[in-house]
Amino acid sequence: MAVSAPTVLPKGAVIGILGGGQLGRMLAQAADRLNLKTHIYCPATQGEARTQTTPAAQVATFATQAAYDDKARLMEFAKSVHVVTYEFENVPLDTIHFLQAHVPHVPVRPNAKALQTAQDRLTEKEFMQSLNIATADFVNITSLQTLEAACAQFNGQLILKTRHFGYDGKGQWRITTKEGANKPNQHTPQTAFTALAGRAAIAEAFVPFEREISVLGARAIDGTMALFDSVENIHEESILRQTYAPAHIDDSMAEAAQEITTKLLTALDYIGILAVELFVCGDKLLVNEIAPRVHNSGHWTQDACHTSQFEQHIRAIAGWPLGDATRHHDAVMRNLLGDEINHTQAIRNEPNAKLHIYGKHTARPQRKMGHVNWLYPLGQRPHD
Amino acid sequence: MAVSAPTVLPKGAVIGILGGGQLGRMLAQAADRLNLKTHIYCPATQGEARTQTTPAAQVATFATQAAYDDKARLMEFAKSVHVVTYEFENVPLDTIHFLQAHVPHVPVRPNAKALQTAQDRLTEKEFMQSLNIATADFVNITSLQTLEAACAQFNGQLILKTRHFGYDGKGQWRITTKEGANKPNQHTPQTAFTALAGRAAIAEAFVPFEREISVLGARAIDGTMALFDSVENIHEESILRQTYAPAHIDDSMAEAAQEITTKLLTALDYIGILAVELFVCGDKLLVNEIAPRVHNSGHWTQDACHTSQFEQHIRAIAGWPLGDATRHHDAVMRNLLGDEINHTQAIRNEPNAKLHIYGKHTARPQRKMGHVNWLYPLGQRPHD
Repeated sequence: MAVSAPTVLPKGAVIGILGGGQLGRMLAQAADRLNLKTHIYCPATQGEARTQTTPAAQVATFATQAAYDDKARLMEFAKSVHVVTYEFENVPLDTIHFLQAHVPHVPVRPNAKALQTAQDRLTEKEFMQSLNIATADFVNITSLQTLEAACAQFNGQLILKTRHFGYDGKGQWRITTKEGANKPNQHTPQTAFTALAGRAAIAEAFVPFEREISVLGARAIDGTMALFDSVENIHEESILRQTYAPAHIDDSMAEAAQEITTKLLTALDYIGILAVELFVCGDKLLVNEIAPRVHNSGHWTQDACHTSQFEQHIRAIAGWPLGDATRHHDAVMRNLLGDEINHTQAIRNEPNAKLHIYGKHTARPQRKMGHVNWLYPLGQRPHD
Repeated sequence: MAVSAPTVLPKGAVIGILGGGQLGRMLAQAADRLNLKTHIYCPATQGEARTQTTPAAQVATFATQAAYDDKARLMEFAKSVHVVTYEFENVPLDTIHFLQAHVPHVPVRPNAKALQTAQDRLTEKEFMQSLNIATADFVNITSLQTLEAACAQFNGQLILKTRHFGYDGKGQWRITTKEGANKPNQHTPQTAFTALAGRAAIAEAFVPFEREISVLGARAIDGTMALFDSVENIHEESILRQTYAPAHIDDSMAEAAQEITTKLLTALDYIGILAVELFVCGDKLLVNEIAPRVHNSGHWTQDACHTSQFEQHIRAIAGWPLGDATRHHDAVMRNLLGDEINHTQAIRNEPNAKLHIYGKHTARPQRKMGHVNWLYPLGQRPHD
């Protein structure tokens, strides 16, 4: 039975969100303001004890704690909402397909294709190729032999990555077969292949990039798009540490990054916020990866843009027109990791600091517990 | 047993809020971001059916629906929170006194003196006099004879106001004994006194003001203060319709308005946001009234200032340092009344419009259902 999806959600409609972390929390907060309700669906195993509440459930209108393959609970959930979105890209694709098959009148935004593309580094890279978007060179790794061949092809400088479930540097091994091998965090093909433990993987040529930037763009159901300014991201131990908005790149490169984002939004028939991470190598841009969701590198938009990434995502999936993505301040965003969340007194005293705390109970080392956005008048951000 | 109040609330602490309207809702939203939880206490008779949820309870962490004189429920509530505040000034003073007597370790911020002062127009005016702050001339009305004497004293142009429970023009009667009396909305002393129906009242000389402005200021527990810029308010049928930020007044008048606010914050040993409404009459400023809470004329701060009035109030009562109250955009705030909330399509399309919807179920005529903040670069707001 074909039932068409609602174009614009009615007031007080419920947005279903798969995932219960800080991104879901901030989506729920943005929805509140527009009087759109939220329903968080989450197994609550993202590091919280099962008896405690996830960051998103703390502020959502409704919450379901159940596994992503619990079909009865999924049906209940889907019937209680007007649209489904997700706040992390490792939601099982089967969950999305189940919802589409059994509750077809509830649209999933962004769509399954975007999720599928982002979940598999091989699919993602091949998709970029099909659009003539440059990436690092890569090969599919099916054996130690193919990995050794990749080492030769990429001049002994490469990264082995699992195709699935990588985040914050997990499932990645830096390989070098040149002098200086076996430095900390560097592997030989053999040690890396062993660490892979049979998982599907690709090898990527190591990219000696100068900067990592990202662009977040939104696309509405009528196809209109609005992009935030490019930002520069600083990672430490593979975890995003700081974002500088805007990125210090020249206009033509900023335009090229925006064009890539626009091309991806269009090709994916995308609805919502898409994050595109890119490497800057001389005058070239290579896409590193995409995330079909709101993104850590977009947190600065909460305080420095007319419309935050969270409101923009909600507007898009609710069938609203997009908001103004203009930046009205320069900004530096810094994640508060682990125990840093217990030492925010100085930040509370800084007049240009906007503090966001996620309500996580346990401040494990390197865990993202909150963030700060420091604001500066346009053009007056201190030197990076 | 004397138990001292906590200076700075611990993380994840719970803020108790008496009242369940849109002001409580926006306080809860601001608290969320700082990971301070909220507990709304409200009889839910503010126009909602008892079976429906109030705007604030929809987004708060916890909610209690009970009467303000339900001592058992009040005790439960107070024991579940770390500080108590209120979002409307007609919370019974007995409720505050009960809490202070029985749960003395939970501070009430702003304090009972501020509430008591704002609840009674006579006390309020006498308090202004004691601080040498100008107001309209006034007399205490205890009989028709005192009202007739006031008519003579104020040259036949006056307003009779109940001492208690007035808001949005309710409990006010414009009296004129000159030519043109008995125009719509105008009364004789006799008809006004009859309408009073025995309630305590004062008479105020009619003030032929040019503008109505307001200043919102915050004071922290260490006595530091931060004031938002003065704004101009346009009322229609005694309900706030639009706020223009900043007010078009000269610097010396703006300074005078800020000085009055500072004087009041200090004299009341105030903690939180205080709203001061003033009349501009030539080069004179007269205080009309104060509200010991966040205020409709401060909604523009949500999108046009570094720190919103809601975050500022939360910071103050939680024992945090105050945030930066600097205005980074000019703004026009317009309340969405009654059925206007069902016609927001055009507003959604305006790039400089920030929409806030309160989640009220019934759009009765003149009811405040939401508001819009339109933003303009500093100095570029269109002419009022």
